[in-house]
Amino acid sequence: MAAQWTSYQPGPYANEHIRITPTKLADGRDFFYMDDDPAYVSGSKTRELKDPRPLDYRFAPHMDADGHELPYAAPMMRRDPLTGDWIPMATARMNRPITAGPGATATGNPLAARKPGDPYQDGEVPDSDYDVVIFENRFPSMVQVPGQSGEPTLVDGNPLWEQKPAAGRCEVICFDPDEQGLPADLPVSRLRTVVEAWAFRTAEISQMEGIEQIFPFENHGQEIGVSLAHPHGQVYCYPFIPPKMEQELRQSHAYHERTGGNLLKDIMEGELAAGERVVMRNASWIAYVPAAARWPLEVHVAPVRDLLTLDQLNDQERWDLAQMYSALLKRGNAFFDTGDGRGMDLPYIAAWHQAPVRDPRRANYRLNLQFFSFRRSPNKIKYLAGSESGMAAWVSDTTPELIAQRFHELGAVDIG
Amino acid sequence: MAAQWTSYQPGPYANEHIRITPTKLADGRDFFYMDDDPAYVSGSKTRELKDPRPLDYRFAPHMDADGHELPYAAPMMRRDPLTGDWIPMATARMNRPITAGPGATATGNPLAARKPGDPYQDGEVPDSDYDVVIFENRFPSMVQVPGQSGEPTLVDGNPLWEQKPAAGRCEVICFDPDEQGLPADLPVSRLRTVVEAWAFRTAEISQMEGIEQIFPFENHGQEIGVSLAHPHGQVYCYPFIPPKMEQELRQSHAYHERTGGNLLKDIMEGELAAGERVVMRNASWIAYVPAAARWPLEVHVAPVRDLLTLDQLNDQERWDLAQMYSALLKRGNAFFDTGDGRGMDLPYIAAWHQAPVRDPRRANYRLNLQFFSFRRSPNKIKYLAGSESGMAAWVSDTTPELIAQRFHELGAVDIG
Repeated sequence: MAAQWTSYQPGPYANEHIRITPTKLADGRDFFYMDDDPAYVSGSKTRELKDPRPLDYRFAPHMDADGHELPYAAPMMRRDPLTGDWIPMATARMNRPITAGPGATATGNPLAARKPGDPYQDGEVPDSDYDVVIFENRFPSMVQVPGQSGEPTLVDGNPLWEQKPAAGRCEVICFDPDEQGLPADLPVSRLRTVVEAWAFRTAEISQMEGIEQIFPFENHGQEIGVSLAHPHGQVYCYPFIPPKMEQELRQSHAYHERTGGNLLKDIMEGELAAGERVVMRNASWIAYVPAAARWPLEVHVAPVRDLLTLDQLNDQERWDLAQMYSALLKRGNAFFDTGDGRGMDLPYIAAWHQAPVRDPRRANYRLNLQFFSFRRSPNKIKYLAGSESGMAAWVSDTTPELIAQRFHELGAVDIG
Repeated sequence: MAAQWTSYQPGPYANEHIRITPTKLADGRDFFYMDDDPAYVSGSKTRELKDPRPLDYRFAPHMDADGHELPYAAPMMRRDPLTGDWIPMATARMNRPITAGPGATATGNPLAARKPGDPYQDGEVPDSDYDVVIFENRFPSMVQVPGQSGEPTLVDGNPLWEQKPAAGRCEVICFDPDEQGLPADLPVSRLRTVVEAWAFRTAEISQMEGIEQIFPFENHGQEIGVSLAHPHGQVYCYPFIPPKMEQELRQSHAYHERTGGNLLKDIMEGELAAGERVVMRNASWIAYVPAAARWPLEVHVAPVRDLLTLDQLNDQERWDLAQMYSALLKRGNAFFDTGDGRGMDLPYIAAWHQAPVRDPRRANYRLNLQFFSFRRSPNKIKYLAGSESGMAAWVSDTTPELIAQRFHELGAVDIG
């Protein structure tokens, strides 16, 4: 079975600690097993590669009520003339399953490992066990359809309203087969495999035509609308530079033009010099509450070394990141004092900002993780109301120094 | 009592239908009664002007634990070097009362009219009755402190991190003394007074030094974190151009440079020409679902006449806006089919985008209301998760045409 690993052209992300086994789901989507340990390769277990579900090819034409064949309706995106933003319009996602919370509609968990003999046919994982799996989202808001033209057209013939296929890519990364598991409770060795998944997908998707930004992220918690409780993250690959990256690229490019420096590096060094807001560090990574934090709990994590993208991490940096991510999630759960000392399952978003795929300003950017929570206290949430949603003007209910102070209470800064 | 009206220099917003009676609350904040009908002037009722609460002057110094006098701690704002955005840091707001929903902490409703003999002392309205009242927020995220320097300083001495006082202004507008009332159920004559309040505050606050953007808005619904159920709106007056306005000004300015035209006017005319997404109109206003709508329910309302700001509305436009706003709220509540035909209390944000106070690009802007809801269906909410909160990349779960189609089902386009 070693052939599966080596035959997958593992490239710069491969190493002796991880095994990658690719396959295709029944409808044609890409699927990858990532095993924590290559012992699987020489061990008794092989990965089940065949998806038993009788799914149609995902881009198959469909029949209308009169029996006419209609081509696959790809999601489109339109450019908002008032802001310049592209808005993917993901009508297909309206039918996606929800297994968490009061609006739950699905009858099973599609991220679970398949149980032998289980009649449930919507599971996405062919095997009855796994470590980490990655696959293309079945209900993508962006997808590249083979043979489909990416040329823009005009809505109602008006040049104000450009539209074109939302030719991006949406992938799901499952962190563990245990659907009740929390990412904060996973061993560092497993989080190391998750880091590997981020690096692997960044390396591979960067080679795909038309993708401008690769965005690995994790949404955690029903409070922010996570529709599947199973521990997982996502990778959104946009066929455009997303608005927040555009803002950051504009700022870091202007800073470079003005000073010759790298904005993100100078921010990190400024935080190290100030000291007060640095909350964790190890040999490869610095975690700090940014001096102008906008969320009630916000931590940015920057590599010590100058790096643009996740696939540039070396082996040590991958291990150190897994350790840092684990510590960050555990401290996040302990951040709000629940009175009983047990902490809480913190809702959070972990958002990887990395250099865009080909935008010429990429050289002045620098890899960073932006970790934040909407939670303001054990029983309060920050909502994005008029100021944030209507004017994109954030108002913080706390200060960066208060956030950092709480982290300092939770443990030593140096976790290396 | 007519003197109170005329002595208030009513300016361009005054007219024979509205009476404005100014006073000050016990802690020095501005307070205004706006009465639907000047009959009060000659009637038996006068407005109670005296706030009976023993409140300290709001900018009074306070004593620390050792009895030393500390100056009033004004809210500060810091500029995020990574985005260029100013972030007001409103630590004082952490103590604000919450009377709605499970996190409710307050013992009364500060927006209620005072009940004679009521021992509750936190009510903000001196009178036992009112139509509409406006007052400065007791827990503002931005405030102008008399005598306080607005000069920027540096956080930790680092030129990357500018900070200065968040010298803006936050006002509250109560729409009705009935704390159970819904804005959608108010008579058009009352909404006319609310329109008048928007115009009045825009006219007056435009004259205040240091205010760059006046943003009247309404947050409605516990689902979006509204902390007081009482029907009310707010006016945020920013000492900077908020990020979304900056984006819109950049786009409309570039459009003018390129074409000589006004972007917002051409968008409105494009929507009229296309027709499909126009959902309501009367003699003064056009309501349409924008061709690149990002929310599950989104309607923009534009004046027929070229106007920059709310205080430029003439008498007819104010009445027509009240009628349009009423119709919009009613259709919003009927939008999602609840199965029982009764509709729902839709959570929404109504955000007024008007020309900035003095930015030179203001002439190429045009007044518009952006009305939207987070609700996706009777039992689903759109959450702003990784893509929206982390990358500011909105993904729509529907299409503008589907939204417009539902509005068309709910009633005739021409409500004039």
